[in-house]
Amino acid sequence: MSKFIRVNMKTKTVTTGEVPEKYSGLAGRALTSSFVADEVKPTCHPLGKNNKLIFAPGFLTGTSAANSGRISVGGKSPLTGTIKESNSGGTFSQKMARMGIKALVIEEMATEDTFYVLKIDMNGVSIDEAPAEIIDGCGNYKAIEVLSTKYGAKVGIALAGPAGEHRLPAANISFKDPEGNIRSAGRGGLGAVMASKKVKALVIDDTGAPGVTIAHPEKFREAAKVFAKALLNHPVTGQALPAYGTDVLVNILNEAGALPTRNFTAGRADWANDVGGETMNATITARGGEGKVSHGCHAGCVIRCSQWFPDKKGKYVTSGFEYETVWGLGADACIKDLDKIALIDREMDDIGIDSIETSVAIATAMEGGLLPWGDGQAALDAVKQIAVPTPLGRILGSGTAVVGKVCGLFRTPVVKDQAIPAYDPRPVKGIGLTYATTPMGADHTSGYCIATNILKVGGYVDPHKKEGQVELSRNLQIATAAVDSTGCCLFIAFAILDIPEGFQALIDMINAQYDLALAADDVTNLGKSVLKIERAFNTAAGFNNAHDRLPEFFEYEPLPPHNLVWDFTPEEIDEVFNF
Amino acid sequence: MSKFIRVNMKTKTVTTGEVPEKYSGLAGRALTSSFVADEVKPTCHPLGKNNKLIFAPGFLTGTSAANSGRISVGGKSPLTGTIKESNSGGTFSQKMARMGIKALVIEEMATEDTFYVLKIDMNGVSIDEAPAEIIDGCGNYKAIEVLSTKYGAKVGIALAGPAGEHRLPAANISFKDPEGNIRSAGRGGLGAVMASKKVKALVIDDTGAPGVTIAHPEKFREAAKVFAKALLNHPVTGQALPAYGTDVLVNILNEAGALPTRNFTAGRADWANDVGGETMNATITARGGEGKVSHGCHAGCVIRCSQWFPDKKGKYVTSGFEYETVWGLGADACIKDLDKIALIDREMDDIGIDSIETSVAIATAMEGGLLPWGDGQAALDAVKQIAVPTPLGRILGSGTAVVGKVCGLFRTPVVKDQAIPAYDPRPVKGIGLTYATTPMGADHTSGYCIATNILKVGGYVDPHKKEGQVELSRNLQIATAAVDSTGCCLFIAFAILDIPEGFQALIDMINAQYDLALAADDVTNLGKSVLKIERAFNTAAGFNNAHDRLPEFFEYEPLPPHNLVWDFTPEEIDEVFNF
Repeated sequence: MSKFIRVNMKTKTVTTGEVPEKYSGLAGRALTSSFVADEVKPTCHPLGKNNKLIFAPGFLTGTSAANSGRISVGGKSPLTGTIKESNSGGTFSQKMARMGIKALVIEEMATEDTFYVLKIDMNGVSIDEAPAEIIDGCGNYKAIEVLSTKYGAKVGIALAGPAGEHRLPAANISFKDPEGNIRSAGRGGLGAVMASKKVKALVIDDTGAPGVTIAHPEKFREAAKVFAKALLNHPVTGQALPAYGTDVLVNILNEAGALPTRNFTAGRADWANDVGGETMNATITARGGEGKVSHGCHAGCVIRCSQWFPDKKGKYVTSGFEYETVWGLGADACIKDLDKIALIDREMDDIGIDSIETSVAIATAMEGGLLPWGDGQAALDAVKQIAVPTPLGRILGSGTAVVGKVCGLFRTPVVKDQAIPAYDPRPVKGIGLTYATTPMGADHTSGYCIATNILKVGGYVDPHKKEGQVELSRNLQIATAAVDSTGCCLFIAFAILDIPEGFQALIDMINAQYDLALAADDVTNLGKSVLKIERAFNTAAGFNNAHDRLPEFFEYEPLPPHNLVWDFTPEEIDEVFNF
Repeated sequence: MSKFIRVNMKTKTVTTGEVPEKYSGLAGRALTSSFVADEVKPTCHPLGKNNKLIFAPGFLTGTSAANSGRISVGGKSPLTGTIKESNSGGTFSQKMARMGIKALVIEEMATEDTFYVLKIDMNGVSIDEAPAEIIDGCGNYKAIEVLSTKYGAKVGIALAGPAGEHRLPAANISFKDPEGNIRSAGRGGLGAVMASKKVKALVIDDTGAPGVTIAHPEKFREAAKVFAKALLNHPVTGQALPAYGTDVLVNILNEAGALPTRNFTAGRADWANDVGGETMNATITARGGEGKVSHGCHAGCVIRCSQWFPDKKGKYVTSGFEYETVWGLGADACIKDLDKIALIDREMDDIGIDSIETSVAIATAMEGGLLPWGDGQAALDAVKQIAVPTPLGRILGSGTAVVGKVCGLFRTPVVKDQAIPAYDPRPVKGIGLTYATTPMGADHTSGYCIATNILKVGGYVDPHKKEGQVELSRNLQIATAAVDSTGCCLFIAFAILDIPEGFQALIDMINAQYDLALAADDVTNLGKSVLKIERAFNTAAGFNNAHDRLPEFFEYEPLPPHNLVWDFTPEEIDEVFNF
């Protein structure tokens, strides 16, 4: 990957250059975060001209490595004010990689009232006026159809949906997936950043792309086999996720008493099984669907965790129907109807709004009296208002912190203004440290301690005790920053944590591709360096240790059934980033 | 003043003790800020049980010193997240002082769904259930009537209005003034803090109060005369303010090209005179009113800047009708009709919402497409929705930062999430340094450089140039922190900056009252120490130098007619607090 493309939306100029030397050894999150730290003024307004948006495939993207097709998107977040890397599946990243594009950067902003489509192919980038029919309320499903018709069925697409057009802080970037449906770089509002620059969509056509160069193809093939085998052999990635999707976690977390229910007032919901993975799987199977149950979010995925959820007539409703969304609506907002939840999930994808942030915002809005508890239809109607947007739609589309503010709540589950997702930090203390300290704002994927606290992957650390959690969160955050740089789905971590040859195979693939001799320590050092760069950006943007705290109510409201509180001291929390 | 009262709203216990030794030499802002720094956890949620609210008269309050009847209210702000001191006129403070109450603190919160009235008299404090008729939408004018009927016509009253009941971040605390109308501790949302503790009102009856003890009465009387004379002799406090009220500034700032217009896109409005002090005065005079033109916000005021604005039939509409509110609606939101502005001002007082924050929020909402530009009726209707509150009302009642967030704007005029008031920092650079650095969030009263930049009070520093501004803002912030501790109206600063014997008389009064021998340096040192305490709280609450910045658009959008930008470097700004 040798091309570094910059698109200036003010001057409408495109610069395609060689990859700057300092970025040559970076990819994915390592690249996006380094770039943002280098070129974005930390105190800039995220929706102003001085923010930049960068798209980058990972080290292994475009190769035959299993599960390596993720794309990293970076910028300063309008939701959190922090640096942000948000990644997604879809077809975009692999096309970029095969075309030799290391990164695409969008700079400055168009000042005229026109949305544009950036068309990327082997001839370069053209800046086209966006088709009128995809602007001003057009849903993402329709927009993908229109763009696929205009630019060709096989193009990759990145979209800012209606939420993005209105620059709402929870707007995501939606990516066309292999079936023409939607995957999202969900968290942190980067869709609002994209649209603030007046870019409605990126369309990528890799016709004539040379593909990825592999320095040692045979070594690569061998390592790739070992790697894929590890994924297929691990019980989480080889069995649980393919069978039930991520929603398998509903019953597991409910059993653990850590499924946040009714805006984090309980750790168990007696209706949990009605919305859990087993029920989802049985429902999909019974309805037949369109012949699909689980499938992958990008080509080359061997885990295939994504659930293809149909309505009662067997017609497709939504996919990438994840645990965190089902939890947010099903347990936290007490909407006990999986079909209604599926409709809301589809609507969020169609509008282009982060389904985690918005689900938690809905539950918080219920506590605040803006919506009736557990009313799925009211929630669906409210989500539809995000696309208009009505004042209520604007509130929900701005995320949980804004909902808490306008409702005068102190029980607002956010860290750095990003919603706390589907695992209560009181009975699963490791994940609480990740929420508190990750440079991303509350984010389970930044250091998924659930693996070791609950799923007993990578060893076991008692979730109720403080012992061992600081090291666990620290090590997982470091490892995750590295994994997020490979282009691999984070779920590979389950396998590489437990299967040493799987981890070695990951390193072997990178070494074989780039003619390197990296060892495990190099991976750790990469992760550490990414986190330090991100944290330094945040400090310059106005964050200090006082922001590395959970909302205060976790400290004095014990969570049933275990009746635990969050009891890490500030000093203990601050140890996570002592490396 | 020897009593220090704590009311615990969880246990419903009242503790009246001696003033703790460490607070014996403090009053007003010096006391409220020291107390908050000592007892409020900086990272607590402002609307949670760990915030505290403190009311304190100033050093001179309750004496015959002119203009000394202000009350300071302190707590952690739900608007800014910073420490907050907000002060107000009215009759409350002088009653507290005459009763010997140094401070009244509200701690913890009632968890039951009941609002209370704290009744304070010489027998102590009783906690009464609030009359049902003043809860749930009752305006402040009516609530004052009800409480005055129930508790006696002469009682002092502090109220959380409907905005406070809904814990909206811009809710103020409203105080009954000598005429039974409304004065506000406006900025920073302390009304939401009060109501979060389930205190709807404080009622104070000073029957039987011993009055304030003066150690050297004769010396005090002499100094008080000199002090009052200085106020009456200075052209600003003796002539301009009494004649035209603060609204006299409209034409002055317009002439200076520093009247922020249409959400800070211009520094002049060609309709400025239609809403300026001269027009206001002519209107009031022509309509006769109820025999009043200007009057004071508290007994003993010799400046009497408050305007008593009647409708076309001569009937009272609003008072305390200030420049900043008229500016926000009249120039920034382009509402060119003084009568409509007066109705909105009355409505904001009645709802109990900060009129500066809300006026700027309205202008920002107009830029964001939530309201039509310049439409006074639409603005009035929207403000009324704050009391309901509808989703739009909640947005406006949450202040300018939230409006900017839900509208996806980068042109959001706030510092530390508090709205920038009526003086553009590009052509009046001194005030920009105050906005950026004061521990309160954007606040002109924290270091009113307009005095020296525009009014040529306390010397002259060219408003367009950077030279001298750092020292000016620093010195005025220090002086203001001291003045805010005396209980005196900030407007005495005009006189004491220019008339040395006026300043000496202020010190002489304090010395005579308390049998002290303070000199000018002691006053300066008090101011410095207050600022340092406030800043340390903010640092612990999560603020660093990166928050001491103006919104970025001021740096690259030149303001007509002078076409200046905000050009202080971060390093220069950070010099303000280098003392």
